[in-house]
Amino acid sequence: MKQYKRVFFPGRFQPFHNGHLHAIKYILTKSKEVIVGVMAAQYNFTLQDPFTAGERIQMIHDSLKNLNINVYIVPLNNIPNNSLWIEYLKNYLPSFEVVFTNNAFVKLLCEKSSVKVEPIPFKQRERLNGEKIRELMVKQGNWEKLLPSEAVKIIKQVNGVKRLKTLYAVGAAELSKVKLNT
Amino acid sequence: MKQYKRVFFPGRFQPFHNGHLHAIKYILTKSKEVIVGVMAAQYNFTLQDPFTAGERIQMIHDSLKNLNINVYIVPLNNIPNNSLWIEYLKNYLPSFEVVFTNNAFVKLLCEKSSVKVEPIPFKQRERLNGEKIRELMVKQGNWEKLLPSEAVKIIKQVNGVKRLKTLYAVGAAELSKVKLNT
Amino acid sequence: MKQYKRVFFPGRFQPFHNGHLHAIKYILTKSKEVIVGVMAAQYNFTLQDPFTAGERIQMIHDSLKNLNINVYIVPLNNIPNNSLWIEYLKNYLPSFEVVFTNNAFVKLLCEKSSVKVEPIPFKQRERLNGEKIRELMVKQGNWEKLLPSEAVKIIKQVNGVKRLKTLYAVGAAELSKVKLNT
Amino acid sequence: MKQYKRVFFPGRFQPFHNGHLHAIKYILTKSKEVIVGVMAAQYNFTLQDPFTAGERIQMIHDSLKNLNINVYIVPLNNIPNNSLWIEYLKNYLPSFEVVFTNNAFVKLLCEKSSVKVEPIPFKQRERLNGEKIRELMVKQGNWEKLLPSEAVKIIKQVNGVKRLKTLYAVGAAELSKVKLNT
Amino acid sequence: MKQYKRVFFPGRFQPFHNGHLHAIKYILTKSKEVIVGVMAAQYNFTLQDPFTAGERIQMIHDSLKNLNINVYIVPLNNIPNNSLWIEYLKNYLPSFEVVFTNNAFVKLLCEKSSVKVEPIPFKQRERLNGEKIRELMVKQGNWEKLLPSEAVKIIKQVNGVKRLKTLYAVGAAELSKVKLNT
Amino acid sequence: MKQYKRVFFPGRFQPFHNGHLHAIKYILTKSKEVIVGVMAAQYNFTLQDPFTAGERIQMIHDSLKNLNINVYIVPLNNIPNNSLWIEYLKNYLPSFEVVFTNNAFVKLLCEKSSVKVEPIPFKQRERLNGEKIRELMVKQGNWEKLLPSEAVKIIKQVNGVKRLKTLYAVGAAELSKVKLNT
Repeated sequence: MKQYKRVFFPGRFQPFHNGHLHAIKYILTKSKEVIVGVMAAQYNFTLQDPFTAGERIQMIHDSLKNLNINVYIVPLNNIPNNSLWIEYLKNYLPSFEVVFTNNAFVKLLCEKSSVKVEPIPFKQRERLNGEKIRELMVKQGNWEKLLPSEAVKIIKQVNGVKRLKTLYAVGAAELSKVKLNT
Repeated sequence: MKQYKRVFFPGRFQPFHNGHLHAIKYILTKSKEVIVGVMAAQYNFTLQDPFTAGERIQMIHDSLKNLNINVYIVPLNNIPNNSLWIEYLKNYLPSFEVVFTNNAFVKLLCEKSSVKVEPIPFKQRERLNGEKIRELMVKQGNWEKLLPSEAVKIIKQVNGVKRLKTLYAVGAAELSKVKLNT
Repeated sequence: MKQYKRVFFPGRFQPFHNGHLHAIKYILTKSKEVIVGVMAAQYNFTLQDPFTAGERIQMIHDSLKNLNINVYIVPLNNIPNNSLWIEYLKNYLPSFEVVFTNNAFVKLLCEKSSVKVEPIPFKQRERLNGEKIRELMVKQGNWEKLLPSEAVKIIKQVNGVKRLKTLYAVGAAELSKVKLNT
Repeated sequence: MKQYKRVFFPGRFQPFHNGHLHAIKYILTKSKEVIVGVMAAQYNFTLQDPFTAGERIQMIHDSLKNLNINVYIVPLNNIPNNSLWIEYLKNYLPSFEVVFTNNAFVKLLCEKSSVKVEPIPFKQRERLNGEKIRELMVKQGNWEKLLPSEAVKIIKQVNGVKRLKTLYAVGAAELSKVKLNT
Repeated sequence: MKQYKRVFFPGRFQPFHNGHLHAIKYILTKSKEVIVGVMAAQYNFTLQDPFTAGERIQMIHDSLKNLNINVYIVPLNNIPNNSLWIEYLKNYLPSFEVVFTNNAFVKLLCEKSSVKVEPIPFKQRERLNGEKIRELMVKQGNWEKLLPSEAVKIIKQVNGVKRLKTLYAVGAAELSKVKLNT
Repeated sequence: MKQYKRVFFPGRFQPFHNGHLHAIKYILTKSKEVIVGVMAAQYNFTLQDPFTAGERIQMIHDSLKNLNINVYIVPLNNIPNNSLWIEYLKNYLPSFEVVFTNNAFVKLLCEKSSVKVEPIPFKQRERLNGEKIRELMVKQGNWEKLLPSEAVKIIKQVNGVKRLKTLYAVGAAELSKVKLNT
């Protein structure tokens, strides 16, 4: 793999965990700079997207410490037109040479827009997985060791575990729309 | 509980039933005025949201009769950003002191925005429940006695039972997007 | 003119003044009920639309006092597709028989949608005019006597004169978009 | 059935198949002109809506060959307010006398807007069905004979079968929102 | 200039006039097929955009008569993000090789998206100009001879001259937002 | 003035100039961290907003060099509801204590949301002004010395001067909507 000048790494980061941190460190061995895209930025307080874009930016920023100087952290709203996705992102991002992702769908959309893709070596994919970590948080499991300590700190500051438990208790299927007492 | 000047009571009111009427009467013993928020106002003709905002406003208005002078009825669209919800509502509403709700999710969002919440005593929650009443309407059950007679009258005027039966026959999962002959 | 059951009266009510109050009283001699549409509800803190929808609802509600029982006050967002306007409104409003307006543009759109229009007798149109009243507020003129005292009270509560002066000082042409220090 | 001047035929056309072609030919025996509405135009690269509006327009146009002169092909976005649907469409379409559809939900919405509906005789509905054809494409079945050869040609040009297989592999439930590596 | 297979010709067509017709005929000598983009499709009943997308499609379709078989007529909404414009359009259009336009702004946006542009020889640009023709319509000038007779016919059917006169009387500056009696 | 932990500095940065750089350096003497908000992020290729959000992020990032570690650069779309603006921003931003701005309108909106404001000492406000600099660019003036050299470099990379000249030639009043050959 050649050395890049600037690349793009998209994710939802709900929450930002050690697998994400590991991926960013890996990418910074392949590229001078990396743009971290905080996707689905407009969603929050749902079981699948519990944290606001601002909270996620903070988690990523603090976890990166001295790496920040080569990292851009950019919140990006999702749009309904999938085929337009990559072109839409480009308007909000500094130019980049390649997208780092293992997601087959993202690869398909990049290919549609003639954007090159590179894979990321997984680290403990079974455990370092957003959905599983959110479940651990709801069920009082040992989630803290799976995240950078700075991300844990922010989740505690915003009372994130209580938030997730309430979202879970209300029922996952209903959370993307506010369904009130009927 | 102290006596309030003006409070907010949100709901979808699909349809407006005796439990809602009971709640408003209760709230009016605790507050001089109440703002009734007709939520998810932009949705209609779906199995979960069969009635238009206008039809719901009419049901509530007519059922309240002489109480209207102390009641505001305001349609409010849902937005995708949950965390912004309370602040969004405030722009469309006269100022209020507290939200009356039993919904844990609404409570969570109010807390996020530092808005006080009060509970409502349930009345026959098992029967006075929007989803159950819509089912009764589809299955020719005895739904009429669960609603104020004024709300029943409006449902009949707009041919609401036939509407619900069609929505049910087409299939609940498909109704939020118009899925046509493919 | 025949007697109506329910009619629609749209306006921006920036602010609600004695001409509006006079119009509603007139309309209530022609119709049992009237729906007051608070148009351009999503705009506020601009020179042309200084007050929020909630503040305007409050001004109208308080000024009407005992008339409220026959009046619906409904905030309505503007949409870009003019031709769709009347049909869009109908979804948020109880059914109505006729629109009361003197505006030629509204008449044109009603005609397009086959909705009947009735005129309103003007009362001191030269003075009772939203734009002139906003100017008086900015220039410390005697605006208070042109509004119902209840509307004056709300404008004072929200510090409305100071708000208008700031909006005016920043420059009218720039206010619909937030233009910051460049 | 009387002879019409211009009628509307809505569908998603994911993809355009022989049943659609048969329907259009049938409708052209009942009406001088037909407007083919390419619905849900803003969606693409999802399991349920794999092809872009442009690709669908091309499939329909090429399959119609010399019929084009009496056919309008118009892409139309879906909107959340179902009750407003027919009125919304009218703004983007030449005037029409009737809607041709077998869909009970579309019939309900047409009735709400006082628009007349006519049925279409089904041709091999069991096999000529968008969902089944998409399944055949994913599972290497014999889908090609179910489509006009011109539509097959376009699907091959855009690498449509590979696209559908990827969308299927990623998982149907996730495709309407871009869900990335978490 | 080489011979093209399919090209794109965007315009607002408010109204469709002989200059547009002449341009399409010219383009059809350079390309087998042409996509006519009806831009700003969501606007109507304004002084600058008086006709609906449907009315404009009808004018173009009828004026082209036997040319239709090689012409696609597609309504396209405007979007706020200029830089994304060309990529947005591509999702709603069959693939095309080049854009025919004389507009410097469109050329700039095409260049940004690496799309080729070709000029169109003007025909009586001084007179065949949408803005001038709309003025003639308002001021009872001889506008009819500047349009294909089929377009004139449709404007008369929808009472277009009266519509334009009302839009003009209400005031150009106010028409993109519905400004009501204040 | 006390020492802050994290503050917010909004601007359009069209383009990023020495006055902005000076302001950020000043703010970093007052606060450990600063969030730079790239406002009106969805606009570009207009006379007033010529550069994309991505281009502006790049200009700011490169100009800050070793300061980046304490700076967040976040693109933010404008919304029509002014009164909701501050609350909307909070969802996309790490928490902050105060807004640095000299703009009276921003101050008004902060006050409405109970957010504290601090002023910024102006540096050569007469010359270091976005509108004046854009004019210099169009008129071949000496604009380069008014910007950090890194920002100049990016403007040259994207051919920014030619872009601005085209936007200027087409006419400022027309640029927010794509107005094509009519």
